[in-house]
Amino acid sequence: MRMVDLIDRKRRGGALDGMEIRQMIQGFCEGTIPDYQMSAFLMAVVFQGMTKEETSALTEAMADSGDIMDLSSVHGVKIDKHSSGGVGDKISLVLGPLVSAAGIPVAKMSGRGLGFTGGTIDKLESIPGFRTQLTQEEFLHNVNTIGIALAGQTGRLAPADKKLYALRDVTATVESLPLIASSIMSKKLAAGCDGIVLDVKAGSGAFMKTVDGARQLAMEMVSIGKSAGKAMTAVISDMSQPLGYAIGNRLEVVEAIEVLQGKGPKDVRQLTLRLGAYMLVLGRGAATPEEGEAILEELLDSGKGMEQFERFVRAQGGDLSRIGDTVMESKEVTLKPGVVQAMDTERIGAAAMCLGAGRKTKDDPIEYGAGLRIHKKIGDRLAEGEAAAILYYSHGADVEAAENLVRQAYHMGEAPVSPPPLIHDIIA
Amino acid sequence: MRMVDLIDRKRRGGALDGMEIRQMIQGFCEGTIPDYQMSAFLMAVVFQGMTKEETSALTEAMADSGDIMDLSSVHGVKIDKHSSGGVGDKISLVLGPLVSAAGIPVAKMSGRGLGFTGGTIDKLESIPGFRTQLTQEEFLHNVNTIGIALAGQTGRLAPADKKLYALRDVTATVESLPLIASSIMSKKLAAGCDGIVLDVKAGSGAFMKTVDGARQLAMEMVSIGKSAGKAMTAVISDMSQPLGYAIGNRLEVVEAIEVLQGKGPKDVRQLTLRLGAYMLVLGRGAATPEEGEAILEELLDSGKGMEQFERFVRAQGGDLSRIGDTVMESKEVTLKPGVVQAMDTERIGAAAMCLGAGRKTKDDPIEYGAGLRIHKKIGDRLAEGEAAAILYYSHGADVEAAENLVRQAYHMGEAPVSPPPLIHDIIA
Repeated sequence: MRMVDLIDRKRRGGALDGMEIRQMIQGFCEGTIPDYQMSAFLMAVVFQGMTKEETSALTEAMADSGDIMDLSSVHGVKIDKHSSGGVGDKISLVLGPLVSAAGIPVAKMSGRGLGFTGGTIDKLESIPGFRTQLTQEEFLHNVNTIGIALAGQTGRLAPADKKLYALRDVTATVESLPLIASSIMSKKLAAGCDGIVLDVKAGSGAFMKTVDGARQLAMEMVSIGKSAGKAMTAVISDMSQPLGYAIGNRLEVVEAIEVLQGKGPKDVRQLTLRLGAYMLVLGRGAATPEEGEAILEELLDSGKGMEQFERFVRAQGGDLSRIGDTVMESKEVTLKPGVVQAMDTERIGAAAMCLGAGRKTKDDPIEYGAGLRIHKKIGDRLAEGEAAAILYYSHGADVEAAENLVRQAYHMGEAPVSPPPLIHDIIA
Repeated sequence: MRMVDLIDRKRRGGALDGMEIRQMIQGFCEGTIPDYQMSAFLMAVVFQGMTKEETSALTEAMADSGDIMDLSSVHGVKIDKHSSGGVGDKISLVLGPLVSAAGIPVAKMSGRGLGFTGGTIDKLESIPGFRTQLTQEEFLHNVNTIGIALAGQTGRLAPADKKLYALRDVTATVESLPLIASSIMSKKLAAGCDGIVLDVKAGSGAFMKTVDGARQLAMEMVSIGKSAGKAMTAVISDMSQPLGYAIGNRLEVVEAIEVLQGKGPKDVRQLTLRLGAYMLVLGRGAATPEEGEAILEELLDSGKGMEQFERFVRAQGGDLSRIGDTVMESKEVTLKPGVVQAMDTERIGAAAMCLGAGRKTKDDPIEYGAGLRIHKKIGDRLAEGEAAAILYYSHGADVEAAENLVRQAYHMGEAPVSPPPLIHDIIA
């Protein structure tokens, strides 16, 4: 096998077989296939795509390039949930405790995200005392006793994906459906679960701007997962505006707690119930999504979800009573009055980042209390002098930039507008 | 300028401006733009192409990356000739002396080719005593006194092209019209002539297998040359069978001499006259191609072309009286009788290579006397027991492989066939 021949075949629209893909990824990791050949191959993939078989082979080769989490000692069917990422997405904080309360073991290891706000791990660390660095023993012990553990990634999960992604990032080869799908799924396969519910977001705050794009990506990922023997469901959810009202690590934890208490924003509650219902179905905790949703709704309204959240936080050293301790500076953002026609949701995310809620590079510090709460979403009316959002920050944040971004994010008008649907499609 | 943004723009089908291309090539040569970004860019070009402006800018940036031959001390209009390469192509050996006899200064520096037989430089070196390593002074002195010098390339001509080509070769990005055209033309521009006649070949022995492909390439190169201020004409000539009958360095010199003596194969004579006529037109030595052809025909038939060839060889130390000194082993190749329907000309070239006439890597030695003479071309009838070709070689050559290749090259049948036209098109 000469790499130049594989590149040439892909350039002409041909397909590689599983063995060729596996050897290619192995050679790339070992350095016998140089970056300049891999980047030419990746660009050919951008133009010619990959077959389902190629995409699956690539995903599995990347998953096998490092450690595979061994969850065999965890009792029950392990169902993971993955979100393609959005602004104000605190679903995991509610969903983990909730489905574990329903008997689905939650054993989730997450990386630290780059982006507008931190990832789930960062959000949890905004709870005073919360430890996300667990030993393998602690992690499995917690899952098997209280039913849930959420920890920072240990070990080398899919290092081939990491190396490949770094190359794609500097060679303009990120935008390829099979490459995006295999990158995400390689890490999911290495995480060792039995099934995955995907939350693929569509809209101005998502990687995929259109429902159709999100649907394509979802189908690609569902196909990869199934081919690897995983139970799969994908939910296409809306990201044309933030989820809930809070954006920022601790602000989102607080909003998640409100939802666990049976209050909080309807969209966060509704999406949590829907994703959880599919997790229950895949994990054989419910026969139908409707049954799953009813089970979870009961757990929320009876307070059992919240109890499980408290148990989970306590088990990892967190102290919820101290969550309001830090007082941040704040500033209201006013706009000209009218009806919110649309939102440039990415700008809301960027505003949170300006305030200190996210990190641009992996060594940037995060200001846990920073972020914003929006008061208005699509279809809402803003009255004269009313604040559209309130910013939270500490000294040194670029408040002016954040304020401008929030102003630019809101598209105001006079026409009445219906809010967008929360769920666009289900791919199973 | 970030390279990733340039790659991204090209990937989306956009164009780079001249300054961006120049900086990119400069950065690539200096090593600030890594190979892995350049190869991704090249693959994007394979799919998206380049505008005429981009192709010209790339060519000029590569030409400017090294030395530019200074021919300002050569009197007259310097017209270069370039062949895209074929089997049995000894045209330069006849053409150089002939057009210089007509008053067009010939100041040609050539690289050593890889391929089925050597390049023009290797062919000349097959003449005992012939020196192709001239000093700059000798070279210019010969051009200004006798009108012609042909020497091996000195200096660094278009090193960016060399580096880029090496990368294309291992990343399956060779096959792109603008990249092929700019690679050839960058070296031509660096060679410092005022005009170029291109001999772009089409057929089974050429890089371009179809007349249409050759025409596209010719148009691309003519456009680049004109944009750089050069007088340009391209001849699309036939390579569906070898030129003449001799293939191999010294064998070709002998055949070239026959043509200079007013004998020899008609196709070699005719193509030489046609290419020379356009050189005379571009060099203002003739008003029309017809006038140019008449001038050159007179020079051939009067023996003045041959006299000039002898003068040229003597000036560079060659001794034509010793050209027949080496006696090679030989073997005839017989085939089943019939009419030659078509030829797989590349196999004839490969046979010459097996016999020792060419080199695979730049350090391979060449057996100057090795090669073959074919006796039959398309449309010719081969009688029972008649030889289709005769192989020349010395000890150690892979004669069996050569014989098989010659057999495979001849497609025999019973139907009468017209020989292909020699000239398919002219692009000016």
